[in-house]
Amino acid sequence: MSRGPALRVALLGAGVVGSQVARLLTENGDEFAARIGAPLELVGVAVRRPARHPEVPAHLLTTDVAGLVARDDVDVVVEVIGGIDPTRELLLTALRRGASVVTANKALLAEHGPELYEAADAAGADLYFEAAVAGAIPLIRPLRESLAGDRITRVMGIVNGTTNFILSAMTADGVGYAEALAEATRLGFAEADPTADVDGFDAAAKAAILASIAFHTRVGASDVYREGIAEVSAADIRAARRIGCTIKLLAICERLTDDDGGEAVSARVHPVMLPDAHPLAGVDGAYNAVYVEAESAGRLMFYGPGAGGAPTASAVLGDLVAVGRNRLAGGRGPRESAAADLPARSMESVSSRFHISLDVDDRSGVLAAVAGAFAEAGVSISTVRQEGRDTGGGEGAALVVVTHAAPDTVLSDTVARLSELEYVHRVTSVMRVMGDLR
Amino acid sequence: MSRGPALRVALLGAGVVGSQVARLLTENGDEFAARIGAPLELVGVAVRRPARHPEVPAHLLTTDVAGLVARDDVDVVVEVIGGIDPTRELLLTALRRGASVVTANKALLAEHGPELYEAADAAGADLYFEAAVAGAIPLIRPLRESLAGDRITRVMGIVNGTTNFILSAMTADGVGYAEALAEATRLGFAEADPTADVDGFDAAAKAAILASIAFHTRVGASDVYREGIAEVSAADIRAARRIGCTIKLLAICERLTDDDGGEAVSARVHPVMLPDAHPLAGVDGAYNAVYVEAESAGRLMFYGPGAGGAPTASAVLGDLVAVGRNRLAGGRGPRESAAADLPARSMESVSSRFHISLDVDDRSGVLAAVAGAFAEAGVSISTVRQEGRDTGGGEGAALVVVTHAAPDTVLSDTVARLSELEYVHRVTSVMRVMGDLR
Repeated sequence: MSRGPALRVALLGAGVVGSQVARLLTENGDEFAARIGAPLELVGVAVRRPARHPEVPAHLLTTDVAGLVARDDVDVVVEVIGGIDPTRELLLTALRRGASVVTANKALLAEHGPELYEAADAAGADLYFEAAVAGAIPLIRPLRESLAGDRITRVMGIVNGTTNFILSAMTADGVGYAEALAEATRLGFAEADPTADVDGFDAAAKAAILASIAFHTRVGASDVYREGIAEVSAADIRAARRIGCTIKLLAICERLTDDDGGEAVSARVHPVMLPDAHPLAGVDGAYNAVYVEAESAGRLMFYGPGAGGAPTASAVLGDLVAVGRNRLAGGRGPRESAAADLPARSMESVSSRFHISLDVDDRSGVLAAVAGAFAEAGVSISTVRQEGRDTGGGEGAALVVVTHAAPDTVLSDTVARLSELEYVHRVTSVMRVMGDLR
Repeated sequence: MSRGPALRVALLGAGVVGSQVARLLTENGDEFAARIGAPLELVGVAVRRPARHPEVPAHLLTTDVAGLVARDDVDVVVEVIGGIDPTRELLLTALRRGASVVTANKALLAEHGPELYEAADAAGADLYFEAAVAGAIPLIRPLRESLAGDRITRVMGIVNGTTNFILSAMTADGVGYAEALAEATRLGFAEADPTADVDGFDAAAKAAILASIAFHTRVGASDVYREGIAEVSAADIRAARRIGCTIKLLAICERLTDDDGGEAVSARVHPVMLPDAHPLAGVDGAYNAVYVEAESAGRLMFYGPGAGGAPTASAVLGDLVAVGRNRLAGGRGPRESAAADLPARSMESVSSRFHISLDVDDRSGVLAAVAGAFAEAGVSISTVRQEGRDTGGGEGAALVVVTHAAPDTVLSDTVARLSELEYVHRVTSVMRVMGDLR
């Protein structure tokens, strides 16, 4: 079956993902050879402490990662060590001498994607990264290739398992953020330092990648507006339940039309109240799902495990097979296309509906005063509801306002103004709403 | 932006899908050119009656379809006319002279796939068919490329919108099959002659394609076991509701292990009782969804509109962009891989759990007699329940049996034997069950 010369693979990292990649390459070698038409040969595995990797044949282990990527008999470098430095330089070295690269490094791609794409282009090498977004869920290839004949208008995803686990636990058990985070840490769903996850950095890097691919343009991590979940309270969750919604941390990439008719893109990460009937609302625990809207295709959803050693290894190995097939065909796969080159817009250009809860005086005139503040700012109210105090402590009532779509900045100003109203004790919750409320 | 020579496209058919392809090619020409790096040029549209297509520029229309595919200035043929003859010969002609082919023709691929793949291979041309299964849902490329580094164990899909619409209506409205079919016809979800859909031929063709791609082997339409939904009764639907299940017509492709440890595949289409908690159970109306299980990736689901002019055109155009990019890179995309070459097994090799409803005498000894018949056949019973008669008419009781997994043929024999028991009036429903019952 194997007609071509072996494709020689260097593996950088043998942690949770890398060890699975090494194992599967060895165990399923014959299948890979048959599918590609040439065998895959693992020629080196760069690790920090070789003694910790008894599962990898000793002669393959090396601590000289720079030496490994510079070897001119290496056809493809698989990078699963993460981080920006020295990883960026290592991958550039590999690409510049014509080796293809398969990486799961979302942060690096979001920060330095263009530089890496250009190096790959210049050398005629492949740069694949299916594993960088949503683990094993095929997403990059469907967006870049299957939907290349369509116009994607929006990509909306649950792309961080840690925060989804925490929000699911808060919803199911009624616990607060701190308690849910502690549980996630105890069960291994959150890292000791959960900042990258809970503050939305991880999701923002993925949003940058998704927006770049979906809109044929270049969106970097710094173009992505970012709010995490640390401010989401049990009261927010209860407020969402009352209007038939679930709170999810979403990465949202949208095609916008500017006032002058020109096109632009927005990429952002923030918590959202999502109606229970929305396909993303039912995605619980550590699962990931990405919802795509395109002009011709309509609404699509991709769902699956978003992380973990084996699922991520599946994505890495799929890319490796693609590199192998391309090499054997004497070429490379489709390049990244940044042809549309659309400008990225900040939150100032984005309009959202908002759900706002206020603690107010329980007396007449309050509703008029609050409605007046919205009217003054030009924010149109969809519904307003008075209800029993949710947060306890003191006299008063709770007022819940859902607005029609309003510019993000205008809304912030309005909320600031509400806080200053005599009747308003406190703005207890402000959250964006997506989808159709019942 | 456009650096390459134009890719010259011949379109066969200008019906629901073809007219959308022609429209989008014209309207979004600049975007295609930018994404591919070369423009797409529509050079001819073959139709039966040119007068019926005022939307297509008159100079492009031709009734000479054989002449169009034989033109040596055509780089790619897009086929959306369907049917086996003369379509098969037309596409072979195109492939043999080196033109690539993009087709939505599931029946042709399921019947003559190998012949077409071989012609494409021999000529170094692309043969793409994302639109043949599940409309705009990216499925072929994810299975063939993204999951090429994994071992897919099962693919299970709702791939026919007509039957899903009918079963959804039967479930939601409690109506019988005939009434739901009439409603589907009235609303345009079923054709005047619904045979291909309701008898499972359409789903079986898609099962053959999915099994071939997923298992790197060749599965034809004749290898697929097929049962339609015409026998599904309102009583079946009610029986499913009572055990927390929904009835769906599924295309199921499985990797099997033979008794001697060798591997084989099974592809089949039949109605299934699926627990409401299963992700496929909630897919209603004309939507399609495909659930994939793989050793490393775990469980994935792909969801979206399964038919319609625009969604199918989206899939066709995605393939067209891929052909264009491949041509420009001087090559072609990954070939079909039939490397595994696994034998296809008939239903005799497949085991399923079954849900069986019986009308029986309402007297002691019935349960023992029925249980005895199962025991004699070696079929293990999971649960048995006696309940009020569901089907009306006459005295007696209803007995509902759910079995553990049993070979399909053994089960058929058992059901035949049950019918002959003195106490048993009638076997009212026999249906396979998948997933975990609550």
